[in-house]
Amino acid sequence: MAVYTEIEDEELERFLADYDIGHLTAFRGIAEGVENSNFLLRTDKAGVASDFILTLYEKRVNPDDLPWFLGFMRHLATEGLSCPLPVAGKDGNALRMLAGRPAAITTFLSGVWPRHVHEAHCAPLGAALARLHVAGSSYAPTRANSLGPHAWRPLLNATQQSAGSEEAFPALIGELDQALGRILSDWPGTNGQKDLPHGQIHADLFPDNVFFLDGKVSGLIDFYFACTDLLAYDVAICLNAWCFDDDGAFHPVFAQRLLEGYESIRPLSADERAALPTLCAGAAMRFALTRLYDWINTPAGAMVTRKNPMAYVQRLRFHLSAAGSEAYGG
Amino acid sequence: MAVYTEIEDEELERFLADYDIGHLTAFRGIAEGVENSNFLLRTDKAGVASDFILTLYEKRVNPDDLPWFLGFMRHLATEGLSCPLPVAGKDGNALRMLAGRPAAITTFLSGVWPRHVHEAHCAPLGAALARLHVAGSSYAPTRANSLGPHAWRPLLNATQQSAGSEEAFPALIGELDQALGRILSDWPGTNGQKDLPHGQIHADLFPDNVFFLDGKVSGLIDFYFACTDLLAYDVAICLNAWCFDDDGAFHPVFAQRLLEGYESIRPLSADERAALPTLCAGAAMRFALTRLYDWINTPAGAMVTRKNPMAYVQRLRFHLSAAGSEAYGG
Repeated sequence: MAVYTEIEDEELERFLADYDIGHLTAFRGIAEGVENSNFLLRTDKAGVASDFILTLYEKRVNPDDLPWFLGFMRHLATEGLSCPLPVAGKDGNALRMLAGRPAAITTFLSGVWPRHVHEAHCAPLGAALARLHVAGSSYAPTRANSLGPHAWRPLLNATQQSAGSEEAFPALIGELDQALGRILSDWPGTNGQKDLPHGQIHADLFPDNVFFLDGKVSGLIDFYFACTDLLAYDVAICLNAWCFDDDGAFHPVFAQRLLEGYESIRPLSADERAALPTLCAGAAMRFALTRLYDWINTPAGAMVTRKNPMAYVQRLRFHLSAAGSEAYGG
Repeated sequence: MAVYTEIEDEELERFLADYDIGHLTAFRGIAEGVENSNFLLRTDKAGVASDFILTLYEKRVNPDDLPWFLGFMRHLATEGLSCPLPVAGKDGNALRMLAGRPAAITTFLSGVWPRHVHEAHCAPLGAALARLHVAGSSYAPTRANSLGPHAWRPLLNATQQSAGSEEAFPALIGELDQALGRILSDWPGTNGQKDLPHGQIHADLFPDNVFFLDGKVSGLIDFYFACTDLLAYDVAICLNAWCFDDDGAFHPVFAQRLLEGYESIRPLSADERAALPTLCAGAAMRFALTRLYDWINTPAGAMVTRKNPMAYVQRLRFHLSAAGSEAYGG
């Protein structure tokens, strides 16, 4: 839920004058996206109504990364993926400033994100992820994953420091510390482990970032964690985000559909499959750690809804006890 | 900023099946409105796209009042006012249940609400308010103003009790208590004071409830404080909401434009004009009291942004020292 920054009328008018998208006819704050301020923007150009999303990038996005993100979205849209297409101003630049923040206008996508995931969502989701990977392979610039494996130990240490001596935490942090040791020693491409295919990944493809229409994926949004990393790690993030119910129970059928959908476009190699338990544990670790850090460092009742880290600790336990990649079906 | 309730996909599907508005193609939470949850709903019907707002009524709205509110909006829209038109389901009912809450679909209105009020907004706003009053005169059902003068003393007492012995408050509460005595003894229709014309009023026509397009009012929204009360009191609420800048300075020219716009549609009687200082002081009192009550009873950093009551205490002081209705121009 997010409008962190209000935009003055005159500022908005001046900003839009730099575009050739017609005349503003509606402007509403959108209560979605946690990191940035988003507005629905409707324009009229010679009688044709068009909708856009105006995003103001707030402090959690590094402005230096924005050209990479917007370039990636433009690349994917050009390759036929349904994702927000950055709209350039009259000078050709899509990345601009508004209300003291970096800002961009992108196209509006139809569809509804699933509040509850069903089996039927999982194959289309998997296929959409694979299409993203395939389309991304021709986007040459790279961006390191700032929340990848090398970041997890420092994040755990920072969490431990913030937690102080609060009673509930030492046991949990001990558990994460031990799990992290195992995950990092098994991680592909390190410690003599086989490396896996790299490429552009979304890295945050949760249900609220995927719109569906008539049972098909109609749009992928929120590319602001995208980066260059193991493609199968992106699959592992989706297995975590789409294949467990609210009570933390794993749905093997959902995972099977997700992998079938993915492999209908891009088959996983035997090494990628074999690494799934470790990749899934790593993905669960990444979200457990950022949620735990935010939980401890966000005052209760603050504007941002805190997400419970324990849902990802439960997933982590599941993956660490998984008996090989067969646990994920297939 | 408001999505307090999430709606399950299947619930939404079942809910929409009771309407004849076509097929859902987009659904986004709207970060506007403080009291309720609002969603942008787009449908496609035989190739024609239409936009609606879906509102879930949260706990601050009394469900028993909803038929009156929706009936009033339908009446105003039928009379040609640009306000949300409640959309009836196939059974003819506009008021339904969704996610355990009363819910309604209304039409989407174009326009942008002014983040900063300028002189040019004030005459169109005044005229729109007068049109609302004229159109409302043929809506027969009445609804008492639950935040009218009779509610102010109990609200002040409740505020005093919640405030406890916090240092800053006794002086402020003493000031409000004294001002309230004067306002209530001067209030039209009481204590031998002349009564004024009653009718249906909006009672909350702040800038974020008024959309403009090309310098004209394109829509009035948020009728959930509307009630039957003195028409000139609604003018007084707008004088408070539109004619002071962020530093609390009064703009007599804004007030003059607002009154000119209003009187271009519905002239004020001499008695209504003469009562403006008391009505304006009462309106300032009403918003000072509800904001002060919320300020004291909302924990710092809660999800709801607290509005500073002092802006309305300043306005109250201004109105109490106003040298007659000439202070408001005209």
